[in-house]
Amino acid sequence: MTRPRALLAMEPRFMDGLFGPDGLDRLTGLVDVDPGLVVDDFTDVPELASAEVLVTCWGCPAIDAAVLRRAPDLRAVVHVAGTVKSLITDACWERGIAVSSGAATNAVPVAEYTVAAILFAGKRVLGIRDLYRAERRALDWAAHFPSLGNYRKTVGIIGASHTGRRVLGLLRSFDLDLLINDPYLDEAGAAALGASPVGLDELLAAADVVSVHAPALPETRHMLDARRLGLLSDGATLINTARASLVDMGALTKELVSGRIDAVLDVTEPEILPADSPLYDLPNVLLTPHIAGSAGGELRRLAHAALDELDRYSRGVPFAHPVLPETIGRSA
Amino acid sequence: MTRPRALLAMEPRFMDGLFGPDGLDRLTGLVDVDPGLVVDDFTDVPELASAEVLVTCWGCPAIDAAVLRRAPDLRAVVHVAGTVKSLITDACWERGIAVSSGAATNAVPVAEYTVAAILFAGKRVLGIRDLYRAERRALDWAAHFPSLGNYRKTVGIIGASHTGRRVLGLLRSFDLDLLINDPYLDEAGAAALGASPVGLDELLAAADVVSVHAPALPETRHMLDARRLGLLSDGATLINTARASLVDMGALTKELVSGRIDAVLDVTEPEILPADSPLYDLPNVLLTPHIAGSAGGELRRLAHAALDELDRYSRGVPFAHPVLPETIGRSA
Repeated sequence: MTRPRALLAMEPRFMDGLFGPDGLDRLTGLVDVDPGLVVDDFTDVPELASAEVLVTCWGCPAIDAAVLRRAPDLRAVVHVAGTVKSLITDACWERGIAVSSGAATNAVPVAEYTVAAILFAGKRVLGIRDLYRAERRALDWAAHFPSLGNYRKTVGIIGASHTGRRVLGLLRSFDLDLLINDPYLDEAGAAALGASPVGLDELLAAADVVSVHAPALPETRHMLDARRLGLLSDGATLINTARASLVDMGALTKELVSGRIDAVLDVTEPEILPADSPLYDLPNVLLTPHIAGSAGGELRRLAHAALDELDRYSRGVPFAHPVLPETIGRSA
Repeated sequence: MTRPRALLAMEPRFMDGLFGPDGLDRLTGLVDVDPGLVVDDFTDVPELASAEVLVTCWGCPAIDAAVLRRAPDLRAVVHVAGTVKSLITDACWERGIAVSSGAATNAVPVAEYTVAAILFAGKRVLGIRDLYRAERRALDWAAHFPSLGNYRKTVGIIGASHTGRRVLGLLRSFDLDLLINDPYLDEAGAAALGASPVGLDELLAAADVVSVHAPALPETRHMLDARRLGLLSDGATLINTARASLVDMGALTKELVSGRIDAVLDVTEPEILPADSPLYDLPNVLLTPHIAGSAGGELRRLAHAALDELDRYSRGVPFAHPVLPETIGRSA
């Protein structure tokens, strides 16, 4: 059995974190690939001519018609990271190229971060930590945080994406009432996720914690605008580990500076906030620099999942995590 | 059918948080009780003479032989909170009184806090937040936190208590290697919890995150002493949401001041640290004032569980959460 010929296409600096020695061994066992050749530009890459599979990650350029003309054998793209939007063009679909992505795998750490943030928000852990640090004495904590606790609270999830679904799955272990808003989800689909389907405004008004997991699309840009943020109840927590464009940052900053609501923000516009942004220091904001997704040792999980896809491909088994042209338009 | 006569014994201030109007309605439907009579002292309480059930919580005095002599009809104690050690005396066991406790119910919020703390520790969320706040620019976060991520990390749980077991149960949803140390747990018991049984020293040396859930007993006092804390690897996180006496606070403070390890501490000795304790301000310590257990709205969960026990008792069904004399000596 001949192994499919493959080419690695990404910023070369990501290779070490993704694969490691064991991963490279498995990679070279599964496909006929030069692990020392990692391209982030398809110009002057003669290996493209014989590649059957592209193994891609962050930094891979768009695979457009011009690239495809020089890759007559290309049949599959295994993307190690999440979204393939910048990568996969209509020309790929027209060619019938099979595409796999790590979106579902990358949803794992995002969901973990989100669930931990939800539990800490309900328990007011960081607020109580700050108050204890400032006061250094016994206080009636529940009097300072009237909605303290994670019993029968309402959590609203916006978007039944990979991450949104995974968050809901994890939250079913807890005593929480779950709401879901997603235009593509029907009553039965929501019930299967253990959540009640509601409109976006209703969700915002009812939830103690709201976490947004919708895709970044023109029609979802600023879906949480000033009016909708105003629907959140006093003391509610908004979590965004998805895409910054979903939330009007100016309107959100006003709500946070006023102290009316709390937030956990892993994504912002701009991605690195200006040094004078009030969000850095606000006690009611947990601000992190886009780390909820795969980071550090979690890159290995992405690589392991991609290797599993290559294994399936080499055995003629369809991808476990295919990207389909008919749903790519509404995915992250 | 006559309802059993019951008496409420706790600090009266806890009643509102526990029961609320709905809970009181259910209570008075299940047992013949005066909800306005809540005693924290059994002197001059004529109602003791006819009580068949004591519904107890924090602040209930010991039920000793002298109390029992004045409670000839007493057959059961339903303790709404966790440990009954200060309450239930040998005289209760000699009388054959059935005892129920909320220990398993109170383990729920403790386990939730602990799991969130484990996920945030692995992801270095609070450390990265602090660094981002200080630097306000893009950094290679994984380079600053080499062990970043929750993929295939090792989590060590000390003590297969209600909480320890519940933490393990929740952690099975994640890609973590789980170790358990408990002198009363055999190989099969550990396997049923999805964890590998190991000695205490081995656990400390191997785990990236260690969470202690052992009972406070004379033989567990300072089980984590200077030598054992020294076994933790550099950058490991120690979590204590259980009992402060399990850890030598002086030795732990040294390790934390040096910055060698991180900690999440919900319990300390003394319970409220002196104002000059370095633990308040250390960036590698998440310090909270004993809030992991039932707090705020979570008190209702305790009451709901106790009402379920009263319902069972009134129907002649054994308690779901009995306390047994043969195991109370090794429980929290």
